[in-house]
This record gives sequence, C-alpha cells and structure tokens, in this order.
Amino acid sequence: MIITKELKLISEGELNIINITDKIDDIVRETNIRNGACLIFTRSSTSAVTVMEFEPGLVNDIKLALERLFPKNLQYEHEKKWHDGNGHSHIRATFMKPDLYIPVMNGSLALGTWQQIVFIELDIRSRERSIVVQVIS
Amino acid sequence: MIITKELKLISEGELNIINITDKIDDIVRETNIRNGACLIFTRSSTSAVTVMEFEPGLVNDIKLALERLFPKNLQYEHEKKWHDGNGHSHIRATFMKPDLYIPVMNGSLALGTWQQIVFIELDIRSRERSIVVQVIS
Amino acid sequence: MIITKELKLISEGELNIINITDKIDDIVRETNIRNGACLIFTRSSTSAVTVMEFEPGLVNDIKLALERLFPKNLQYEHEKKWHDGNGHSHIRATFMKPDLYIPVMNGSLALGTWQQIVFIELDIRSRERSIVVQVIS
Repeated sequence: MIITKELKLISEGELNIINITDKIDDIVRETNIRNGACLIFTRSSTSAVTVMEFEPGLVNDIKLALERLFPKNLQYEHEKKWHDGNGHSHIRATFMKPDLYIPVMNGSLALGTWQQIVFIELDIRSRERSIVVQVIS
Repeated sequence: MIITKELKLISEGELNIINITDKIDDIVRETNIRNGACLIFTRSSTSAVTVMEFEPGLVNDIKLALERLFPKNLQYEHEKKWHDGNGHSHIRATFMKPDLYIPVMNGSLALGTWQQIVFIELDIRSRERSIVVQVIS
Repeated sequence: MIITKELKLISEGELNIINITDKIDDIVRETNIRNGACLIFTRSSTSAVTVMEFEPGLVNDIKLALERLFPKNLQYEHEKKWHDGNGHSHIRATFMKPDLYIPVMNGSLALGTWQQIVFIELDIRSRERSIVVQVIS
C-alpha cells in the first residue's frame, strides 16, 4: 500500500533551510502505518531535501559550504537562457538531488537522535513549494 | 506490486548528459499504475542519475562544476590499479550516487515543471549502460 | 511486503570506509525475495552510505576528495554549540545523504560488476553505528 500526501510550504528566500521533520512525522502518524518506508521528493529544480542536525551554527555552515562549492558569482551559461540569476541554484539542486528516503519503524520516522529532515530553498527568492511524501507499507 | 524494467542506452563519451525522462515515463505508463513510486538505478560505478532543467547552458554548467569540484588532472591513486585514466570518474559517481526516486501520480511521473531526469556518463569514453527502473504500487 | 532489518557495525575512526555489500546481500537472501527493492539508511548525522569500486587506491582518493571539498580545519560555527571538533563531519554527511536504493533481481542485489556498497564514517572517532535495511517486494 502506498499513501501519497503533498506538503506545501513557502520559503523565505535564498538558502532558507526549513526543518520539516515534524510535518513529515505527522503525515506518517496519520497513516497509522507501523513498519514501512517514507519517500520524500521536492518538485522543483532549485531546491533540495536532506538530513542534518538542525541547529543555527550548522545551518550557517551548510550555507557557506554551498557558496564555497558552487559560487553564486561565477558566470553560468544558464543565464543566457532566462537571465534570472539562478544558475548557481540549479547546479546546487542537481548535485544535492530532490529525493530522500527515511525508514518508518514503530509508527514513526526511524531517524537517529541528531537527524532532522530539512528542505533547502536554493532559488534566489521566496517560493511556494510542493513536496510529495509517500508512505509505503 | 513491483514491476522491474531495464533501460539500455549507449552514451556518447565523457560527460554526455542524456535526458531520459520520456523513456522513464513510457515505462511508468506501460505499467498502468496510477499512484506509486518510481525507483531508478544506474548499474555502473562511473555514471549517475539526477534531476535538472535540461537546457544546453545548464548542461554545460554542470560539466564545468564537475570538473571544478573533481578535477580530471589530479593524481588519483586509483590509477595505480588499472591505469585507465578514470579515477576522477569514479569519485564523481561515488559523490553523485547511482540512485533516484520520483513519485508517480495520476499515472505519470510527478516531476515539477522544470525537472527532467538525466543520466550522466562520467567515464572517459562511450559506454553501453544498463539502468534499472522499478515501479512500486 | 516490507521486511526491516538492522545492521550494526563499529567503525574504526574518521574516514573508515567499510564494504557492507556482503552483509546487505545476506539480508536480502535471507528474505527469499526474488524481485524487489532494497533501501538502506544510516541512522546518524555524521556518516553516509554510497556505492563505489572498493579498492584501496579509490578508498584513499575518496578521503582526499572529502578533505578537499569540506576541509577539516575551516572554522565551523557548529563548534560554538558542542566544541567536539566534528563540524566538517556534519557538513559532509548532509551533502552525501544517509540513504541509498539498490534494486533486487533474481534474489540478489542488482549491482553492476564494479559497484560495492560502502558505509563511510565521517565522524572523528570510532563509533557504533546502526544501519536500517529494508527489502520491499
């Protein structure tokens, strides 16, 4: 059985990192599934989902690492197509990927103690986002 | 129920980035599954699958980012084993990973407007590749 | 049907890369599932799972790439919270992600010839680790 839900959220601009653990866990609990797999997918080419210890210092460290690896001020050929200044956003999303899998055990997400699920807005402004959450049992 | 298919393709040399969205969507449609999960896996240690807006500028930007992060001309210890000049290819594949998950809704891949699924040839020459596509419902 | 197992292992310090292919394949074989999907998740915020050709040269190349992309000796704000010297470990784990999917065909992991599944200890000392392995059929 697969239950599919959509999580909507509005990001607060570039590199807004949002802890979505509780919202995903609520979706899992509402399914009443005890043992299964939770699959998460962000439906955009300029955002990502991953796992981290969600604390302010590390949130800043992640932002700095993204800028160090994929600098915003390089010349991107993508600019020639749309001129919307988000070439770096696309590259970051393609490397981080839009998908994530978390096991479900005993009716809840089987995360480690320091693991939280985060959505990362990689685009250059606030966006309304759609995240698909599927629970398989 | 899990339906397993194999997608075969021949890449055109190093950093050939191939849009495989239509081929994956065809596989999904042939299953007649309305609601489920699609899992994609490239069976090689020198290639990757991910999601991007497939347009020529961004395709070039991704190639440049791969070369910036994992330069081809560094000394790789892997060369000592096989002397086949693809140490950088392996590193790139290990970081990008071989797997991808896309939800299936209303009988089709639930991608965002600008998301296409791509196969990236990371090895240094044309190769025949095998990609496993599984649809779970 | 989803069968959930836990794989416990003790890492031997920072950047210990452990080939867990045989252990995962044993779990798959014990389920007697012929055709399905295997999902793997490391339950920690300072480790990762991925796929690589497991040979000593490439193991060293991966370690050097991690250090080049996410240097250990940068100033990380995460240090202000815990002072435990593993800011770089968290960043590396967040970029590499804790999850992996491998197809199961003919009762076994459908890996390519040169693909092995590895656990990477990203924290700065030996740790006891828990990896969840789920087989879906």
